[in-house]
Amino acid sequence: MASFWFDHAWLPDGWARQVRVETAGQTILSVEHPVAPMPGDARHAIALPGLANLHSHAFQHAMAGLAERAGGDGNDSFWTWRHRMYDLVGRLTPDHLQAIAAMAQIEMLEAGFTRVGEFHYLHHQSDGTPYDAPAEMAAALAAAASETGIGLTLLPVFYAHAGFGGTPPEPAQRRFITDLDGYARLLDDSRQAIAGLDGAVIGVAPHSLRAVTLPELAAVANMLPDAPVHIHVAEQTGEVADCLAWSGQRPIQLLLGSLPVDARWCLVHATHAEPSELQAMAHSGAVVGLCPITEANLGDGLFPAAEWRTLGGRWGIGSDSNIRIDASEELRLLEYGQRLRRQRRNLLCADGRSTGTTLFGEALAGGAQALGVAGTGLAAGAPADFITLGADLEHVAGDAIMDRWIFARGAAAIDGVWRAGRQLVSGGRHVARDRLAARHAACLQSLLAG
Amino acid sequence: MASFWFDHAWLPDGWARQVRVETAGQTILSVEHPVAPMPGDARHAIALPGLANLHSHAFQHAMAGLAERAGGDGNDSFWTWRHRMYDLVGRLTPDHLQAIAAMAQIEMLEAGFTRVGEFHYLHHQSDGTPYDAPAEMAAALAAAASETGIGLTLLPVFYAHAGFGGTPPEPAQRRFITDLDGYARLLDDSRQAIAGLDGAVIGVAPHSLRAVTLPELAAVANMLPDAPVHIHVAEQTGEVADCLAWSGQRPIQLLLGSLPVDARWCLVHATHAEPSELQAMAHSGAVVGLCPITEANLGDGLFPAAEWRTLGGRWGIGSDSNIRIDASEELRLLEYGQRLRRQRRNLLCADGRSTGTTLFGEALAGGAQALGVAGTGLAAGAPADFITLGADLEHVAGDAIMDRWIFARGAAAIDGVWRAGRQLVSGGRHVARDRLAARHAACLQSLLAG
Repeated sequence: MASFWFDHAWLPDGWARQVRVETAGQTILSVEHPVAPMPGDARHAIALPGLANLHSHAFQHAMAGLAERAGGDGNDSFWTWRHRMYDLVGRLTPDHLQAIAAMAQIEMLEAGFTRVGEFHYLHHQSDGTPYDAPAEMAAALAAAASETGIGLTLLPVFYAHAGFGGTPPEPAQRRFITDLDGYARLLDDSRQAIAGLDGAVIGVAPHSLRAVTLPELAAVANMLPDAPVHIHVAEQTGEVADCLAWSGQRPIQLLLGSLPVDARWCLVHATHAEPSELQAMAHSGAVVGLCPITEANLGDGLFPAAEWRTLGGRWGIGSDSNIRIDASEELRLLEYGQRLRRQRRNLLCADGRSTGTTLFGEALAGGAQALGVAGTGLAAGAPADFITLGADLEHVAGDAIMDRWIFARGAAAIDGVWRAGRQLVSGGRHVARDRLAARHAACLQSLLAG
Repeated sequence: MASFWFDHAWLPDGWARQVRVETAGQTILSVEHPVAPMPGDARHAIALPGLANLHSHAFQHAMAGLAERAGGDGNDSFWTWRHRMYDLVGRLTPDHLQAIAAMAQIEMLEAGFTRVGEFHYLHHQSDGTPYDAPAEMAAALAAAASETGIGLTLLPVFYAHAGFGGTPPEPAQRRFITDLDGYARLLDDSRQAIAGLDGAVIGVAPHSLRAVTLPELAAVANMLPDAPVHIHVAEQTGEVADCLAWSGQRPIQLLLGSLPVDARWCLVHATHAEPSELQAMAHSGAVVGLCPITEANLGDGLFPAAEWRTLGGRWGIGSDSNIRIDASEELRLLEYGQRLRRQRRNLLCADGRSTGTTLFGEALAGGAQALGVAGTGLAAGAPADFITLGADLEHVAGDAIMDRWIFARGAAAIDGVWRAGRQLVSGGRHVARDRLAARHAACLQSLLAG
């Protein structure tokens, strides 16, 4: 049992003052307001629920900033970036992965994310041979989550081909590749790898229509009937062109026409969606997984988020390549991309709410749905996952707190973070930062010298 | 005399290792490399020169996050934002301005800016009457700079009209308005207000072609013959349309065709520039003052920065509305806007350099030119303005340091900041933060309650 009192708190039905929250273990027991604080309550100015980071490739955090120069021909794109990423892939051991993932998770927690969906495809040894324990790399991710305390939704990836129509994989992809039987074993072992983690969830992740045939996609989606299904789709115009050439259809159109996509699904990126595809996605109840920082860094393009919202489309945010981990910046950049495209302000703004509150509330709900978490928000029965804000945010009230956090102060305003009832961040720093940062530094030193 | 030794430092001709820097008072005396450290040297892993923030309206910092909701008609724009900004304008006293400007300057220094160009138009009392000392508000800005130690280029604004063709000003603009004689007095008094500040510079700032007639513009530009001249231009499509309707020409076209614009000039925003306007601006030697965070926040649009660089155009960055103050984020967002527009990566990247190093080097040179500073960079004779970086940046070398700072770690990587030889930021925090933040909190409390 623990108890908290917040002067301002964002509850499922909006802002409230003088909010008292009791927790029991990992769960919120009660939320009352307006009430006076009681002796023993931990008092904070402002509390928000923790956000879900619905799409991460933890290992890519190690290459942050190492691909920001043009190639020889001056024609740099996602595909040249991917080539550099595969260089790193060839060299990672399970120990590297654990050290890098723990550091990325610390940054996630310090930035307000209390759960991560790890879209995990780096399965095998460098030569492509499975580890003796097939899920050894998944176990490294779980070990990191155990060290940092972040909530983990593990999404083991099924990856079989290099392109549409079942093209054989490239040598650089050998650490990712399984057949359906191998994937079933990997999934079983992965489930065991996370068995000891509080509140861990497992889902399935057919990589993309490039890497998975339609029969394989159906088989993978049915392996865990009630679990999340995540897939990359329509991130790049090159992918759209290849899909059209192969099938005569655009990727989202092909996916929605081929399988019963529903609220279990998270369609990651969906950047290049036509109006008819937006309508079909919205109708499906699936969550669109937007990764604004990575999508800007990779030059993917802008998802039509304003149109998506008017259709009632659900969405959440992910840090994807982990080039930079910051929940407020993801939300800010999502809105700013729309403003720059339309030359208007406050485009992702619900009636009666501010833009920041709209962004936060929708990303919270969409993220929880995509990561398979039933309860969310500061409410009885939900996980005790929340953050407290400092800086000068207490001089404003209501929606302006959220707007000032997202648009002005950013991650530096985050003071404390609790996940499953445990305080993991205090004074803006993760409680295990010093120890895990030292291990991470040693890891980077050996990895980047190589 | 003080001495420093840096393992990595960014010098005018690129990265160097084992760099020893001696300073005398406000100036760099010598730079040597590679050399061993000497006893008494302050040692740091990484040093960069401090950047110029070439465009700021300090007072707008107080409204950060308070205009992020749609208006009643759902058609929110720059112009509805300006209406809210004018509400704040009506209530500010010189004490408010000093408290707010000091906090903004602290954030600038902590984010790597060592000099600010303050585009200052809030001259008079609330009812429009000049203060007894005409430059009382400028003196408040200078007092803030004296407290925080930031380098100040003060740009008193000439503002006379509400629209093209000499339209009379609106009541909400009464605190800005002068005639040419009044402006000349204001300029004299402003020069006295900054006389005691180390390295302070004064320039002139005709507000925009909306607020200044062409004869007034010529008169203002000639008032201080060798000083910087700053003007807002072509920020909004509405302004372009109004200018076309009034003159038959676009704003940049009209400006360059009417006056001898040269390297003294800083053309702020220039967002909506046609190819022929870009060519003429590049030919003039003027600096384009880009404010990517504010331009995104206000929905201005994207300046064609990639095309500008191929013409050899000069540019720098400004924090403008101060909605969020972060040098690395300004540079990152500038590049990301281009990537999203073109769906390619590394668009603002010089041959043989990385994108981060290109962005930094060009913003450094353009900012110094625009703010009237002769020497810049870590070089003998230049001002002793520099920053040191921490985080895990020391695991990479050369350009990757800059890329990892700008694209991955951001402002949190800044450890120390020196301006004119004095250390102002230590451990990422301004040495006077606690005291000035408390005053700022009291100011906001009274201002936002009103």
